[in-house]
Amino acid sequence: MDEFTLIAELFAPLAAGFPGALGLRDDAALLDAVPGTQSVVTVDAMVAGVHFLPEDPPDLIARKLLRVNLSDLAAKGAEPFAVMLAAAFPRGVAEEWLRAFARGLGDDLQEFGVHLIGGDTVATSGPLTLSLTAFGRVATGAAILRSGARPGDDVWVTGTIGDGALGLFAARGELAVPPAHAAFLADRYRLPRPRVTAGPRFARFASAGMDISDGLVQDLGHLARASGVAAVIEAPHVPMSDAARAAVDADHSRLATVLTGGDDYELLFTAPTAVRHELLAEAADIFMPIARIGRIEEGAGVKVIDASGRPLAVGLGGWRHF
Amino acid sequence: MDEFTLIAELFAPLAAGFPGALGLRDDAALLDAVPGTQSVVTVDAMVAGVHFLPEDPPDLIARKLLRVNLSDLAAKGAEPFAVMLAAAFPRGVAEEWLRAFARGLGDDLQEFGVHLIGGDTVATSGPLTLSLTAFGRVATGAAILRSGARPGDDVWVTGTIGDGALGLFAARGELAVPPAHAAFLADRYRLPRPRVTAGPRFARFASAGMDISDGLVQDLGHLARASGVAAVIEAPHVPMSDAARAAVDADHSRLATVLTGGDDYELLFTAPTAVRHELLAEAADIFMPIARIGRIEEGAGVKVIDASGRPLAVGLGGWRHF
Repeated sequence: MDEFTLIAELFAPLAAGFPGALGLRDDAALLDAVPGTQSVVTVDAMVAGVHFLPEDPPDLIARKLLRVNLSDLAAKGAEPFAVMLAAAFPRGVAEEWLRAFARGLGDDLQEFGVHLIGGDTVATSGPLTLSLTAFGRVATGAAILRSGARPGDDVWVTGTIGDGALGLFAARGELAVPPAHAAFLADRYRLPRPRVTAGPRFARFASAGMDISDGLVQDLGHLARASGVAAVIEAPHVPMSDAARAAVDADHSRLATVLTGGDDYELLFTAPTAVRHELLAEAADIFMPIARIGRIEEGAGVKVIDASGRPLAVGLGGWRHF
Repeated sequence: MDEFTLIAELFAPLAAGFPGALGLRDDAALLDAVPGTQSVVTVDAMVAGVHFLPEDPPDLIARKLLRVNLSDLAAKGAEPFAVMLAAAFPRGVAEEWLRAFARGLGDDLQEFGVHLIGGDTVATSGPLTLSLTAFGRVATGAAILRSGARPGDDVWVTGTIGDGALGLFAARGELAVPPAHAAFLADRYRLPRPRVTAGPRFARFASAGMDISDGLVQDLGHLARASGVAAVIEAPHVPMSDAARAAVDADHSRLATVLTGGDDYELLFTAPTAVRHELLAEAADIFMPIARIGRIEEGAGVKVIDASGRPLAVGLGGWRHF
């Protein structure tokens, strides 16, 4: 299957319904200016063997690629509407593989109401390398930035923390837990759930925010640095799934993986204490569990404390790419 | 040099002056809606060993990556304003290499008045793999599309054709031509000159257009197909540089390389015959040589003819990526 057939047969259908995509038959896409809004754009790259397992099902790879980008948009409070895909496929990639990849991408684009509007496909002698540019929209001035946290703010997260990092071990068969837990965690690693509904709904409450991809401690560190503040995480309040909780109870050293491992793709945000009740009501309205895990203080850095307020020593490294 | 230092030291300075880039310290960038305009977005990927030579100077690699994308925007009549970079660097890439890459990118961003507004850097076990998303703007409805060519239109190109393809051979030392010619052609291969000024100026004349990256014949084929028309190229009218002309005169088989080789990054566009004089005046005004190389007809496909109107048999393949 050559480049042109690939685009015409597998990818062009994913552009249907978005006139500015020009049917993927042009060199660029056109985006109309929507008065009163800003476009929010982000790009994430993924490499086989680094960000996913080479033997992962192609549809899941495509869906993860899309979802990590949608997670970034959600964390900014933006509603996604379009993506562009740049893909370097290993020479001789099987047609069936490509079909499954496009099917996975198409399924998820449909699920999230997003269109493919352009891209580039090339061949590589190396591992599969993908990058996706995602476009969203927010009301002008309403985007949630990393830089707005203020001393006294609460620190919140959506969902549960640590499943992705434990799930990577589970997917590799390196986590001694019951099979049902291993399956749950591996699935959470392979298929993030971007909080696309929650992000825009929380925008009016959040003072700062981002998604958790490098690890809770590390990402809160990024947010604190961008805001010029310090942050405290109360470890007992960090929400865990039943599977993660059982894994940590069985081996307490796994708490460090939960707190500093990557691939959560939950929202991490700060908000003034005054909006606690409104925020919880908004979250309840969309059935999104959220947890208050700490607070913002004057200073710099991130401190993790236990139930009695004593500092916990956890690796602060999180994920770094090189 | 880790990911965060790389971004803070080498790339963040390239975002200065564009508030929506958020200093490259956030997860996304913000683009204001400009009433009366459309954004034009394009992405191009490049892989070491496929799109450039692994031993090419890093600053030239960065500049070529930027320029091939700016060429796409120019071909749509758009003025570029921002780019996002997704880069998979081989593990252990030298700091000096990264510095030279960022310097080359920065120099060219400045030359073209464009800002880096975001990106992602990851590690790869394979070859250097880059993708750049470029953002431009056109007045609403003014973009030059591939699909507007009509029977009777002239076919035009900017600059000279074939230098890039001959230059690839020259860069590999595989073209037996005088050293000065080899150096000129290799430079044209390594460093495209995107027609960023001409594209927007020609938008009001052009009925259809694109840039020439796959090869003149192949790209005119794409344009003709998108427009539902046929095209004729009069080979003697295809403009060549002195170096390319000399190479073809010495070995006439090289004409096929000129007509079907890739990497020209000149503009290919069609326009009604009625605007010939105005178009030539506009081109003269910006010192941009343009040449009328053929015409659009009813039908399908691309025909190349010689001075006496007889069809020339040239490879119609151009560049395909897999």
